[in-house]
Amino acid sequence: MDIPVLRWLDPPEGPAIALLDQTRLPAEEAVVICRDVIALEDAIRRLVVRGAPLLGVAGAFGVALAAARGDDVPAAAEVISRARPTAVNLAWGVHRVLLAYQAAGQEKTPDAQQFSAQAALAEARAIAEEDAAASAAMAAYGLPLLPAHDAKVLTHCNTGRLVSAGEGTAFAVVLAAHRAGRLARLWVDETRPLLQGARLTAYEARRAGIDYAVLPDAAAGSLLAAGEVDIVLTGADRIAADGSVANKIGTYSLAVLARHHSVPFVVVAPMSTIDFAAPDRSAIMLEHRAAREVTYMSGQAIAPQGSAAYNPAFDVTPASLVTALVTERGLAQPVTAGNLRLLCARPGMRDSALTDTSMEL
Amino acid sequence: MDIPVLRWLDPPEGPAIALLDQTRLPAEEAVVICRDVIALEDAIRRLVVRGAPLLGVAGAFGVALAAARGDDVPAAAEVISRARPTAVNLAWGVHRVLLAYQAAGQEKTPDAQQFSAQAALAEARAIAEEDAAASAAMAAYGLPLLPAHDAKVLTHCNTGRLVSAGEGTAFAVVLAAHRAGRLARLWVDETRPLLQGARLTAYEARRAGIDYAVLPDAAAGSLLAAGEVDIVLTGADRIAADGSVANKIGTYSLAVLARHHSVPFVVVAPMSTIDFAAPDRSAIMLEHRAAREVTYMSGQAIAPQGSAAYNPAFDVTPASLVTALVTERGLAQPVTAGNLRLLCARPGMRDSALTDTSMEL
Repeated sequence: MDIPVLRWLDPPEGPAIALLDQTRLPAEEAVVICRDVIALEDAIRRLVVRGAPLLGVAGAFGVALAAARGDDVPAAAEVISRARPTAVNLAWGVHRVLLAYQAAGQEKTPDAQQFSAQAALAEARAIAEEDAAASAAMAAYGLPLLPAHDAKVLTHCNTGRLVSAGEGTAFAVVLAAHRAGRLARLWVDETRPLLQGARLTAYEARRAGIDYAVLPDAAAGSLLAAGEVDIVLTGADRIAADGSVANKIGTYSLAVLARHHSVPFVVVAPMSTIDFAAPDRSAIMLEHRAAREVTYMSGQAIAPQGSAAYNPAFDVTPASLVTALVTERGLAQPVTAGNLRLLCARPGMRDSALTDTSMEL
Repeated sequence: MDIPVLRWLDPPEGPAIALLDQTRLPAEEAVVICRDVIALEDAIRRLVVRGAPLLGVAGAFGVALAAARGDDVPAAAEVISRARPTAVNLAWGVHRVLLAYQAAGQEKTPDAQQFSAQAALAEARAIAEEDAAASAAMAAYGLPLLPAHDAKVLTHCNTGRLVSAGEGTAFAVVLAAHRAGRLARLWVDETRPLLQGARLTAYEARRAGIDYAVLPDAAAGSLLAAGEVDIVLTGADRIAADGSVANKIGTYSLAVLARHHSVPFVVVAPMSTIDFAAPDRSAIMLEHRAAREVTYMSGQAIAPQGSAAYNPAFDVTPASLVTALVTERGLAQPVTAGNLRLLCARPGMRDSALTDTSMEL
């Protein structure tokens, strides 16, 4: 990775996890070294490391770290899982490595602890590799949805290397277009209140040499009306079984605006984002966050003292407004409950023919 | 005015204009005293005083100030007019008072200078009174468009006392609803990048005792989808003869979202906002402002150094998305070129029957 978002440090340095401190971007590229689970838990809580896929990877390496140190591994797994209780990927990554560690412990080997620790690390590395492969597959499946040249893409929030062991979700498609010489311009919604677009997506675009411009979220309508957007690409935090997409606040407004201007609105997300246990939007709990995120900026008040704020972290876009869902197993287009179930039944990796991935049922 | 946005200070204090410094709101209610035209010009340039109707009033009192001091009044008028070249109201207010001053100078009176100065001040006061009366008429015409009780109103940018010698435009309607006990909640778009909503509208709402909450602009869609908005009310910076509405960036996105959710989108603006010389949106020049307004906040970078930004100050909403236009002469509903011309032909003040103000042609 050209941005070292998460690295495993091997002995002789001593086992540790190095994290790019995302709270200090874009001003500073600082690295936080976590030598034990307590430090990692703190980093996760403080959003040093964030983003659903990457949290899964971080949790996985956290268990491997506990194993390498000879800690109480099940207790460490419990601590890490609880650091961000709503991030299902975190608990999932932790659980997978814990299982690998425990399975290796069943083997009777001369150096049992080292053997189990190696198994845990191997599983964490496998999770990271799978995540990177999923990014690559999503990029390949998503690219044909863009214009063949001079594509102008609008995106929201942050979906690149900073949230993934690979190149991300929506941003991976943008990168593929850039490398293919098909991208004219990336429009980056600043994504208030926490500015993940202005701070993090702009940072990723700049490092990749992409021609980009940041915009106030409310300017997206004007940009669409001016014919300056060919396609809107976003990620997803959770997708219900009926295709309702929960994602960063503002995504739904973009989807409505895209529909009004007949511009495709495409969601890029790995299969693990689809929550088949949630039948529809009513089953998705939307987190409401503190007013202070809206009414303060860099520690300074930007609204009168005591102002209330409406600050939901996410909104839900109905499947009917989503032109296509891109996953590592191909596309769901249109996004329907039936097409999501069909994707789920598919083999895990890319099909041979990209042209055969769209399901029109 | 309970918020002294602009006051004329009489002798013996010495003639002067006292302005509430809007650049320091909401943190501080500081007053800038302008004792001469140079000080006033500086205050206008620095946005100490802003908002189209209020700039007309400020320009008018500026000419009266020059006259009271015995300055070269035509030269002073020229200086003030140029302080904000795009604000037509400013030049209009200046010109009207200059004419009154010059007309008074034609009279042969013993103390000619004092007589002319008094005429200039009387004209400036008349302009302020007319502006306040227009606010009151817009409030009266707009109120019936709101639900009879528990109205939930969403607004954008700043349209109250801070931009008017009266109670403003859209905000005057909100205040009328509040006083009538019909308002449950005012939703305030923060209005990035310059945060006129979070800083100024929230300040006005708080002073008026209105139950309000600030939201990131991109959260408006979520709010509309939740059924939490009965009507969207905004002001306007310029309205073309075909009813296209130029207003603060983000207004167009709101209009599209309101239409998608079948919520009325109503523009409140005085007749002076209608530019019959501009046939349609193509005749409205849209100002693009510096990237720094988007990429910096309180002097701190919020995007990588050198980031480009898309930062239009205004967008244009087509008449077809505007449910009604409220002016001091009544309503245009639907907003059509014909209905705007009919409004223009009407007498200046309120008709007797509010129920007879909607023109359906």
